[in-house]
Amino acid sequence: MLLEHINGPQDLKGLSKKELEQLASEVRQFLIEKLSVTGGHLASNLGVVELTLVLHYLFDSPNDKFVFDVGHQSYVHKILTGRMDRFDSLRQYKGMCGFVKRDESVHDVWEAGHSSTSLSAAIGMAMARDFKGEDNRVIAVIGDGALTGGMAFEALNHIGHEKKKMIVVLNDNEMSIAPNVGAMHQYLGKIRSDRHYQKAKEELQHFLNKIPAVGGKLAKTAEKFKDSLKYLLVTGILFEQFGLTYLGPVDGHDMEQLLDIFRQADSVPGPVLVHVVTVKGKGYSPAEADSHKWHGISPYKIESGQVVKAVGSPMYTQVFGDVLIELAEKDERIVAVTPAMPGGSGLMEFAARFPGRMIDVGIAEQHAATMSAALAIEGMKPVFAVYSTFLQRAYDQVVHDICRQNLNVIFAIDRAGFVGPDGETHHGVYDIPFLRHVPNLVIMMPKDENELRRMMKTAVDYNDGPIAVRYPRINGLGVPLDAELLPLPIGSWETVREGDSAVIVAIGPMLQVAEDAADLLKRDGMNVRIVNARFIKPLDEQMLLSLASEGKNMIVLEEGAALGGLGSAILEFYSLRGIYGLPIRIVGIPDQFIEHGSIKEQRAEVGLTGERVAAELKNMHPRSKMRVTGQH
Amino acid sequence: MLLEHINGPQDLKGLSKKELEQLASEVRQFLIEKLSVTGGHLASNLGVVELTLVLHYLFDSPNDKFVFDVGHQSYVHKILTGRMDRFDSLRQYKGMCGFVKRDESVHDVWEAGHSSTSLSAAIGMAMARDFKGEDNRVIAVIGDGALTGGMAFEALNHIGHEKKKMIVVLNDNEMSIAPNVGAMHQYLGKIRSDRHYQKAKEELQHFLNKIPAVGGKLAKTAEKFKDSLKYLLVTGILFEQFGLTYLGPVDGHDMEQLLDIFRQADSVPGPVLVHVVTVKGKGYSPAEADSHKWHGISPYKIESGQVVKAVGSPMYTQVFGDVLIELAEKDERIVAVTPAMPGGSGLMEFAARFPGRMIDVGIAEQHAATMSAALAIEGMKPVFAVYSTFLQRAYDQVVHDICRQNLNVIFAIDRAGFVGPDGETHHGVYDIPFLRHVPNLVIMMPKDENELRRMMKTAVDYNDGPIAVRYPRINGLGVPLDAELLPLPIGSWETVREGDSAVIVAIGPMLQVAEDAADLLKRDGMNVRIVNARFIKPLDEQMLLSLASEGKNMIVLEEGAALGGLGSAILEFYSLRGIYGLPIRIVGIPDQFIEHGSIKEQRAEVGLTGERVAAELKNMHPRSKMRVTGQH
Repeated sequence: MLLEHINGPQDLKGLSKKELEQLASEVRQFLIEKLSVTGGHLASNLGVVELTLVLHYLFDSPNDKFVFDVGHQSYVHKILTGRMDRFDSLRQYKGMCGFVKRDESVHDVWEAGHSSTSLSAAIGMAMARDFKGEDNRVIAVIGDGALTGGMAFEALNHIGHEKKKMIVVLNDNEMSIAPNVGAMHQYLGKIRSDRHYQKAKEELQHFLNKIPAVGGKLAKTAEKFKDSLKYLLVTGILFEQFGLTYLGPVDGHDMEQLLDIFRQADSVPGPVLVHVVTVKGKGYSPAEADSHKWHGISPYKIESGQVVKAVGSPMYTQVFGDVLIELAEKDERIVAVTPAMPGGSGLMEFAARFPGRMIDVGIAEQHAATMSAALAIEGMKPVFAVYSTFLQRAYDQVVHDICRQNLNVIFAIDRAGFVGPDGETHHGVYDIPFLRHVPNLVIMMPKDENELRRMMKTAVDYNDGPIAVRYPRINGLGVPLDAELLPLPIGSWETVREGDSAVIVAIGPMLQVAEDAADLLKRDGMNVRIVNARFIKPLDEQMLLSLASEGKNMIVLEEGAALGGLGSAILEFYSLRGIYGLPIRIVGIPDQFIEHGSIKEQRAEVGLTGERVAAELKNMHPRSKMRVTGQH
Repeated sequence: MLLEHINGPQDLKGLSKKELEQLASEVRQFLIEKLSVTGGHLASNLGVVELTLVLHYLFDSPNDKFVFDVGHQSYVHKILTGRMDRFDSLRQYKGMCGFVKRDESVHDVWEAGHSSTSLSAAIGMAMARDFKGEDNRVIAVIGDGALTGGMAFEALNHIGHEKKKMIVVLNDNEMSIAPNVGAMHQYLGKIRSDRHYQKAKEELQHFLNKIPAVGGKLAKTAEKFKDSLKYLLVTGILFEQFGLTYLGPVDGHDMEQLLDIFRQADSVPGPVLVHVVTVKGKGYSPAEADSHKWHGISPYKIESGQVVKAVGSPMYTQVFGDVLIELAEKDERIVAVTPAMPGGSGLMEFAARFPGRMIDVGIAEQHAATMSAALAIEGMKPVFAVYSTFLQRAYDQVVHDICRQNLNVIFAIDRAGFVGPDGETHHGVYDIPFLRHVPNLVIMMPKDENELRRMMKTAVDYNDGPIAVRYPRINGLGVPLDAELLPLPIGSWETVREGDSAVIVAIGPMLQVAEDAADLLKRDGMNVRIVNARFIKPLDEQMLLSLASEGKNMIVLEEGAALGGLGSAILEFYSLRGIYGLPIRIVGIPDQFIEHGSIKEQRAEVGLTGERVAAELKNMHPRSKMRVTGQH
């Protein structure tokens, strides 16, 4: 075993090409074994074994800055920088992060989780280097999928303008998470298929080099012609047009080619793009065969590739996908829009059932939102299916294009609340605060999967503007589904448990936590009323006024940022109505980022538990003596 | 006068080319005269006179959809669609909007204000058309500046993939608002300078057409070669690589060329990009000479081009620019970052004083934010100067890249609050709600220009994470400036007027409104205390606790969305501390979009006036009988 002697990049330096190849094989074996127990991003890491080895072999981290886009493909980097022993705790609570993490290692210099940020980070680091008069390298590794994100293009445009020395590694595995879409994808495909054509180009280059330099006006024309002829030679002309030197494509699993091309790249004075073609899942046949499935994988059996599945009710995601098919059967206006997440958003069956009615735009949340606005203007019913955390990318488009124009766009916001092992970059805990203040928007969250179905029906029936349904990344409760799909009255809450001692207003999965709290308090003789605040906007004003007149202690319970959430909405409502004096306590996520772990552990960390809620209610002052004043 | 007979696009149809040219001249004259009184976006509209005429002449609005990017260049379109008589009220309260506005005309089909949305809108409309089996045209008009926005690239990538029939007009005037930057700009420049080279290309095309088709393996190679040779012919190869047919460039002021190329464009079955080179300010020499200044212009004298300037104290923007120079003199870490707004953000002198230390990235807010994060990681002090409304584009980057990594990025958020004539797309009224819940961020707003200077000093001295200063689009108060620049203690509020009857907590320009209210109430014998809540985050907890113990009626006054703003922050603070029973009233902007007008009119519309605040305070119930409970 070579691997056990690698405690840092310095231990790679003396190795032969043959030893590097052996090491690659050992790293693969290590990943396949470790991830079979913990789960994780197997396929993308198997794809970058040789690439990561070569980068650490040739360059000098942490003096040289390695910037991994998204960061889920950094496992090999973690192995080579002294973290082999932490793989048993990968993505677990208090364990090693599944992404690049600055407090884990000096070799981790840029954190992400969302895609397409690496080019901006790399040019920023290159500029800082030059401001400071230093001379380290900056190397960004970005996938072809991430390249479709608009901010990557913004960065490319700037990189070509600044001409700073830096290396962009295009890790081209022909996909983001789902098979890639878009013109850029087709373009890269053309380059890859062009490889056999290399020979002819080399001959032409040889000929061109022999054209003598001339002077005067003729020179200008000749230069222009020569310039144009370069189009025959340079494969990645699109990148050249952006002002980067293009090198490649090379086989990302051929150590010799990689060593050669990165040595060459290092000699280029300005920005250079190295096009590396890799195979997702390389070296593990189940992952090679279905890299989409193996992008982020649960624990599996190594021999068979069989995934160890937890049994349970269908996920909310699945219920969403199913009901959307039912609705689309009856309504031709419905189209689904996804930013490269057809599988994760439960839309695969929809796409199979309605070819052409699922529009996958690639990693492009901004475009997805604004295109949905236009579809709505023209009378369609676009359903923009997006993870809460990725909707952050389209905040301006939600405000400026959709809500300001008051268009009938349906938002299906998946992964609302904690998301577990992906951790702080992926939680859906800000969408209520960043959406609630936007005029014209209706926001709903279901208490169970049956209510999710009714909310989707509500959304499709609604024709007065944008409407959002948010739901968590967990299994449904296993409740029976109504035979007939009936909409909900907009802005209507419901009491799900009667009681006269106090009231808990909660949403989504927090209703179970409220039930736990109520059960605990029952033992102390308290009968707690529980309200399902299924409309986060508009609020149920009648019920709020009625609760005010009853004047009981109130807890507002939500799995989202406590600042700006449902609790604030309720406090604002009373304040704006001139109703003062109500004892209302918010129990939500405190003002900090919460790391990876299980959803249960994350909830426990911030006190979203029956015990904590019960304790809070017991600690509240008795209400009997307080007077409620109001002007409603 | 032909113009007075044009009541809609149908009146153009019978005109000769000569008459169209005369009409262009009349439209120009009309614009120069009308805008000399109202002000407005003169330069960009003078640039698109012929283009807009030709589009309305050849195509069939509103059946055909005209999508104007940003929409500030839609004045000619407004003239041609029956709105000549409304130009006296341009950008004024209850008058005609300065952008495309759907409720003004059936010819206005897509609204904007922020850049780079038109391509997403156009592909959405083209897809909806095909879903519905209709056959109208879709035509997007986008400037070369707007093309650098990432979402425009996301849309291009999708347009090339879908291959829907549509026309993208690239209105290339070599600038966004400021002279354009970036690799794309250089690329377009190369195309423009290539025009003399056209002849040689035509000959080569002729030759190519004569190459006979062959079969077998040879055919494939021949095709590839032919394909590559196209690079010699096709000027806009970058767009071709994105899957669009490229036509152009043409002179955007030559009616004949325009008519020809759009007829040709209309015959292309898939997406086509028409490259039109225009001159901003065309036909009015002061505007041609300095189109940056004449992008959005105040009223002016036609003869001299002299702008009628209001006299007043320096704008906050100017004060920001000045103090940044002072700070940067002493601190080499400081660099300024702007997304194409060096002038609007007051950075022109900074750029002249420190060449290389102002980084203009083009219209690219996302990239600007994330690049700033990387600069901060490497020890620089980036000052990201951005309008509040455009920071919306970088919400995810603020959360995910800057605040999550807790980096020392300074946000200089200009145009906070109402912005006046640009109206609902440009108000800076959401940044508190969309920033306040993000962990690690400090948010400040100054009461006057001296405090702005101190806040910038505070920000530069602060090394514990991201910090934002937000300031309005108005003149400063003319207060004296401290000789020595001293920082403020983080989270410290101040009482600016003593009083014991009630308290108004206010920020920024609302402190003057609070003073007005207090003056009015003084006549009724009330002494109102006024608190400058200059730190929106963190709050001054000591002062809030002290205010709670005093238990006076409180108004929180802010020129921002009432939902999720400073008022909510204060309500949340008391709720989370278990302090109930305080009579707190929020006076902010209600849950709706506010149209164009003067800032004064906008404030009056929503009740941000001394009269309203005084009335609210008088209407609040007396506090004396209420008990405050708490656990602090």
